[in-house]
Amino acid sequence: MKRLLVLGADGYLGFPVSLHFASKGWSVYAVDNLSKRHIESKQDVSPLIPLPLYKDRFSEWNDLYAKNKTQKIKSFVLDIAVNNRQLYNLLEEIKPDAIIHFAEQPSAPYSMKGRYEAVNTQINNITGTLNLIFAIKRFNPSCHIVKLGTMGEYGTPNIDIEEGWLNISHNSRNDRVLFPKKPGSFYHLSKVHDSNNLEYSCRTWGLRVTDLNQGIVYGSHTELSKNKNLHTSFHYDSIFGTAINRFIAQGLINHPLTIYGSGNQTRAYLHIDDVIQCIELAIENPAEEGEFKVRNQFTEFKSINELALLVSQSINSEDIKTEIRKIDNPRVEESDHYYNPKNKSFLDLGLNVKKISEEVIIDIVRYITPYIKNVRKKNLLPNIKWNNK
Amino acid sequence: MKRLLVLGADGYLGFPVSLHFASKGWSVYAVDNLSKRHIESKQDVSPLIPLPLYKDRFSEWNDLYAKNKTQKIKSFVLDIAVNNRQLYNLLEEIKPDAIIHFAEQPSAPYSMKGRYEAVNTQINNITGTLNLIFAIKRFNPSCHIVKLGTMGEYGTPNIDIEEGWLNISHNSRNDRVLFPKKPGSFYHLSKVHDSNNLEYSCRTWGLRVTDLNQGIVYGSHTELSKNKNLHTSFHYDSIFGTAINRFIAQGLINHPLTIYGSGNQTRAYLHIDDVIQCIELAIENPAEEGEFKVRNQFTEFKSINELALLVSQSINSEDIKTEIRKIDNPRVEESDHYYNPKNKSFLDLGLNVKKISEEVIIDIVRYITPYIKNVRKKNLLPNIKWNNK
Repeated sequence: MKRLLVLGADGYLGFPVSLHFASKGWSVYAVDNLSKRHIESKQDVSPLIPLPLYKDRFSEWNDLYAKNKTQKIKSFVLDIAVNNRQLYNLLEEIKPDAIIHFAEQPSAPYSMKGRYEAVNTQINNITGTLNLIFAIKRFNPSCHIVKLGTMGEYGTPNIDIEEGWLNISHNSRNDRVLFPKKPGSFYHLSKVHDSNNLEYSCRTWGLRVTDLNQGIVYGSHTELSKNKNLHTSFHYDSIFGTAINRFIAQGLINHPLTIYGSGNQTRAYLHIDDVIQCIELAIENPAEEGEFKVRNQFTEFKSINELALLVSQSINSEDIKTEIRKIDNPRVEESDHYYNPKNKSFLDLGLNVKKISEEVIIDIVRYITPYIKNVRKKNLLPNIKWNNK
Repeated sequence: MKRLLVLGADGYLGFPVSLHFASKGWSVYAVDNLSKRHIESKQDVSPLIPLPLYKDRFSEWNDLYAKNKTQKIKSFVLDIAVNNRQLYNLLEEIKPDAIIHFAEQPSAPYSMKGRYEAVNTQINNITGTLNLIFAIKRFNPSCHIVKLGTMGEYGTPNIDIEEGWLNISHNSRNDRVLFPKKPGSFYHLSKVHDSNNLEYSCRTWGLRVTDLNQGIVYGSHTELSKNKNLHTSFHYDSIFGTAINRFIAQGLINHPLTIYGSGNQTRAYLHIDDVIQCIELAIENPAEEGEFKVRNQFTEFKSINELALLVSQSINSEDIKTEIRKIDNPRVEESDHYYNPKNKSFLDLGLNVKKISEEVIIDIVRYITPYIKNVRKKNLLPNIKWNNK
């Protein structure tokens, strides 16, 4: 039975990914420091659908589906950025075949709130990843690490975005280099720093890492998280909520769908179902010893204006009237730009793409409607400005 | 009277740079957390020439040269990575015209000793720089920051090394991007992370930063630090000592000049006098608002074999016999590689280059000879391996 360690297993993606691999017969070890719950409390936001306590989420799964002890998901509260010794012990004990590392502060707006949040985002993310690198090097150097990065690391360069590496020619000489990054927040920068540290550990110590530059994820549920005690955290707020999920929540309570700035900003997206598919493909097709493999994990790219329109039309089709409103952009980002990222790597592995459509949006609408009374209107509009004085 | 804040003013370069600007009429504020003295103690190494206490170094200068109160160098013990509030207060109070930021853990071998040292190097360096960014943004956004980086950030790519930025063409489109980095230790990585954070703060908040990618510095003294109570820290040990300084110390005690590996590794170098010249040129020619200006700060590049031979011949000319010995390379680095870094930026500003020569080496030999009995042989050979298990 293959062993999988999921770091950040209480998260929007970490939880359904843990369930998925358990359902596929992996022995899953789930780790989280619960810091996202802490940040949620401090920022006065919460997921739309209330979550059970961390351990209860896995107990529910185990009660429903685990046929024997080894099939049970084992869950641990552990801060990998602080308790490196506990992380060492865990790795030495379970010797996982693969590790999926989601255990990072995931909000760009949070990282831009001020000095404390910027520093904490970077220190938490960098230290956790460094501790993992040293733990793997010492106890399990052949273990494949799948690390979650973001398409936001690249920013919006004026050239095609390749997958992590770029072949360049300069003054008649050639080299293969890390793709130059232009991240858009201290959060995005933390992922760039992680990527650089990980690439170094592959090059120097022969570690095996797949860095997934993930697009913006949307969706309320996966097949396995549909059960009411197994759902994942759906955020509609301006801190953890991503564009599509936030638009749907806004539309359902007759709040305008708020577009930041021109709405011409184009970004890469994927449905939460495809996250699971991609991670499974990444695990099945691991990096070689010493290889820092980068895959761009998204299925399509669209402008914010296109997305708002599509969400609006879909909700209208359910006989709910919606309005789209442009507001001042709280972020500092280019409003009109070239954008052509590549995702050949997963397509070549056979990724079965689920593109955004009225049907996909209605599926989310119906799933979250029973909980829509939980929306707090004050959390819908951005309260963190990139350029605050 | 222009005000200069020097962060890391107790260091090999920070101290003589502080004296230099004070001698040129700047009002100098010196800051250090004394962490290098702490690391020295813990690693069982010390500078060849014993240093007075931090505050006494500046008192000596003030007693000798300051004609009035404003000419005195004001020194503070402050950890910018920890006491951000004190840093804020200092910046609000003095509103410097320029800041020179040396305040980082400077040893690559130290950063490779183990997890603790790698994490602490990155956290110290990144947090200090982030705290500085937020302090400047809030209290003094037009202040020019001169940040010390290293040529080691680039590594040894197979293309010419430009100064921080690279114009590239890809699939018939063009962009100007940060030069892709390939750093060789967790210390070098920390400088890459800093550069990325600083570039972002220029792009997003309009800060003015000059990032100096400095070569390996050698030399025992500057004109102003010749006085016996004003010397700077000359390190010959394997942790803080750089190649040329270490070779000279080895030669003078009849220890073999130890070359790591093939000796074909080529690196960029400059004399400590030229560091002062470069920093003065960088301050006189500041980055514009919003500009992240990068200058490669070195005067020549040579292989380790060439340097060892030159040091050996110079010492022989003083009637001291020397031997060159190759030892296993404790580092993980390419032994044969292309290397063609550019330093046009400082040459265009009129940098008057002092190249390494027998005369320059003999000048160092004579300066350190009275202290050569202080060499501890056990500190001459590397005890930290990049690839330790």
